[in-house]
Amino acid sequence: MNEPFDAVDVIRAKRDRTHLSDAQIDWVIDAYTRGVVAEEQMSALAMAILLNGMSRGEVARWTHAMIASGERMDFSGLSRPTADKHSTGGVGDKITLPLAPLVAVFGVAVPQLSGRGLGHTGGTLDKLESIPGWRAALSNDEVLAQLEDVGAVICAAGSGLAPADKKLYALRDVTGTVEAIPLIASSIMSKKIAEGTGALVLDVKVGSGAFMKDLAQARELARTMVELGTDAGVRTVALLTDMSVPLGLTAGNALEVRESVEVLDGGGPADVVDLTVALAVEMLAAADRPQDPADVRAALGDGRAMDVWRRMIRAQGGDPDAPLPVARHTEQVVADKDGVLEHLDAYAVGVAAWRLGAGRSRREDPVQAGAGVELHARPGDRVAAGQPLLTLHTDTPERFARALDALDDGWRVAPPGSAVPDHPIVIDRIH
Amino acid sequence: MNEPFDAVDVIRAKRDRTHLSDAQIDWVIDAYTRGVVAEEQMSALAMAILLNGMSRGEVARWTHAMIASGERMDFSGLSRPTADKHSTGGVGDKITLPLAPLVAVFGVAVPQLSGRGLGHTGGTLDKLESIPGWRAALSNDEVLAQLEDVGAVICAAGSGLAPADKKLYALRDVTGTVEAIPLIASSIMSKKIAEGTGALVLDVKVGSGAFMKDLAQARELARTMVELGTDAGVRTVALLTDMSVPLGLTAGNALEVRESVEVLDGGGPADVVDLTVALAVEMLAAADRPQDPADVRAALGDGRAMDVWRRMIRAQGGDPDAPLPVARHTEQVVADKDGVLEHLDAYAVGVAAWRLGAGRSRREDPVQAGAGVELHARPGDRVAAGQPLLTLHTDTPERFARALDALDDGWRVAPPGSAVPDHPIVIDRIH
Repeated sequence: MNEPFDAVDVIRAKRDRTHLSDAQIDWVIDAYTRGVVAEEQMSALAMAILLNGMSRGEVARWTHAMIASGERMDFSGLSRPTADKHSTGGVGDKITLPLAPLVAVFGVAVPQLSGRGLGHTGGTLDKLESIPGWRAALSNDEVLAQLEDVGAVICAAGSGLAPADKKLYALRDVTGTVEAIPLIASSIMSKKIAEGTGALVLDVKVGSGAFMKDLAQARELARTMVELGTDAGVRTVALLTDMSVPLGLTAGNALEVRESVEVLDGGGPADVVDLTVALAVEMLAAADRPQDPADVRAALGDGRAMDVWRRMIRAQGGDPDAPLPVARHTEQVVADKDGVLEHLDAYAVGVAAWRLGAGRSRREDPVQAGAGVELHARPGDRVAAGQPLLTLHTDTPERFARALDALDDGWRVAPPGSAVPDHPIVIDRIH
Repeated sequence: MNEPFDAVDVIRAKRDRTHLSDAQIDWVIDAYTRGVVAEEQMSALAMAILLNGMSRGEVARWTHAMIASGERMDFSGLSRPTADKHSTGGVGDKITLPLAPLVAVFGVAVPQLSGRGLGHTGGTLDKLESIPGWRAALSNDEVLAQLEDVGAVICAAGSGLAPADKKLYALRDVTGTVEAIPLIASSIMSKKIAEGTGALVLDVKVGSGAFMKDLAQARELARTMVELGTDAGVRTVALLTDMSVPLGLTAGNALEVRESVEVLDGGGPADVVDLTVALAVEMLAAADRPQDPADVRAALGDGRAMDVWRRMIRAQGGDPDAPLPVARHTEQVVADKDGVLEHLDAYAVGVAAWRLGAGRSRREDPVQAGAGVELHARPGDRVAAGQPLLTLHTDTPERFARALDALDDGWRVAPPGSAVPDHPIVIDRIH
């Protein structure tokens, strides 16, 4: 086949800070998907993009080309509008689990096509797979039927959506080119736009436990993604949310399902409830079904959200009443003195949970359903010497040592009476 | 095997402008040679090096690691000192051919381990292979014996020298990472240091027909290479020389051998003679056998250099008296008006010669011995309308059209009496 461009010329153009043309971008993504642009060529291009950036027009076209590499889903035949949420990933981020049923309560369908975890942040599918019988893989027809019938689906994204992104993501992972904002934004948005949602709310995490440690970078990522969604006709809004401490009191698969069910039952930690409600309000507004926040919050206490949750789990083969797996071994981290818990680092907790078996290092690794970290105090809480701060859970006790290592500088008790500043969960909103 | 580093960490360090440690550099080159660092990882690292640079210490260690990836030659047993020359490549650059025998005349052995051409600049081995019977491949023992006996060897660099460089060069070629000064400098110098020469003169070309179009960049490359050689105990000096017009009056394999023989016979174009003498004087001085330039020039006219040339060609199976191949077809480019040839672009002539069959696009392509471009005028010469300026030679006449295209803006005739500034061949000397 006669190729209209040469990969080296495209790489050189970006290397020398030239804007790539639409035709160059379309070609390089298509040719990479076909294997004509080699892995080592795409990795050089990815590094040039990371270091030299991309214009708004370039990112939009890059995203468009990745969408064009695969199939698109179509929810226009549904009787209700659709809204989806995407989180850039954080420690203890189980929000999707109570959120999808909650939004469905108000007549907006939630097609939540999710992934598995890699590294120190957990994956939504890994969490739900701790529910006996639940299966992540659905056909497109099953997704549509469940959206119409139950109103909410959390399932594995089909491999047909943006296959170029799948290939590129795996490459970026091994070539030090993950942290490029244009590539992160186009990776997320190509899948979300191809998925066909009408509205999208982005939860862009910032802080030690997030991918973006820095507020300015998180803001740029949020802005880039909102622009991409808006340009593609998806009503898109982003919340910048705090990830300097873990979300809620659990990090781990079954542990987070348990906490999510508490939230659906009207309980659960305040930060998880607040963020769930905030995101639900945004999704409903973006889907043109605005609701009063108090009404949304009420649906968590009165059984309506729980009802959708149970139907959603059952529709995918899961038993919402089955006991959740529990790890075989636990170990506690206790306060070293009386005082106030000043600091509990999200990244340290995330790495500990990962090392205990809740996460994976390689895509093909299994995860332990019961493994993870349970928090007994949050920053600002008074603690007494010897009081348990954390419980570590694992099936494989030889993992405790490295998990404890990760927590070494991850928490700190300040003298009694110390003031610990509060972190508001929602930092900013970008539309 | 348990690896002391992770490739992604090394890539990230350079991406984030951190200095790489000696241990990181040693590992990444060794692991790349072993195949543990993948091609797509090395290409991302090469792009990060291209865009973020390397310190003097990093380049020195990188070069050292590439030398350590293979064997080293040892000329210390020879009865005479050694000096080598390396050119960064230019159009019509046949200087090695008269230079090696000329230096040998004065008791300095010249181990000229050379490569083949790629792109618009020709390769020394390709040129010599147009001599019937001549062979490029010699064993290390044959090289040593010929250096002792004849005093000059031009042959193919063995694959045992700096194998990491060979692999890395092939990768850079397809990933837009050729133009990184630290990587160019370490690629050249790793082979020259491993080769074991005692003295080295670098001919760093600058101008349209050279790899470096820009004087500042050429100067930086020259300085980097002189530092690397000096740090490794090789007496190294660099000349910056002009490559805005072709060297001499020929570009092509047999055409350039013919011109070289003219120079060895006391004739030939002034620029080729001048540069040959200038480089010989530098090599002799660096090898501690300084000679008066006039005495060196005399050896080109009195048969001494020609005598070494004939012995050198014969020692490698070539017949110095055999007629050289001639292309089957020619075509002329004539002056469009009376005046002064104002401009004759080295790059345009190089591309034309390449397209006529003198060069190759891929390593495995054959070259035509007779193909190339012959110049009948040089900038500053008076020309008359209709007078031949260039003769194009090829065995495959369908190549003429694209060669003529390359020459379209490559020359210009100014009104009669116009002053054309002279380009001195040697621009600067860096020690």
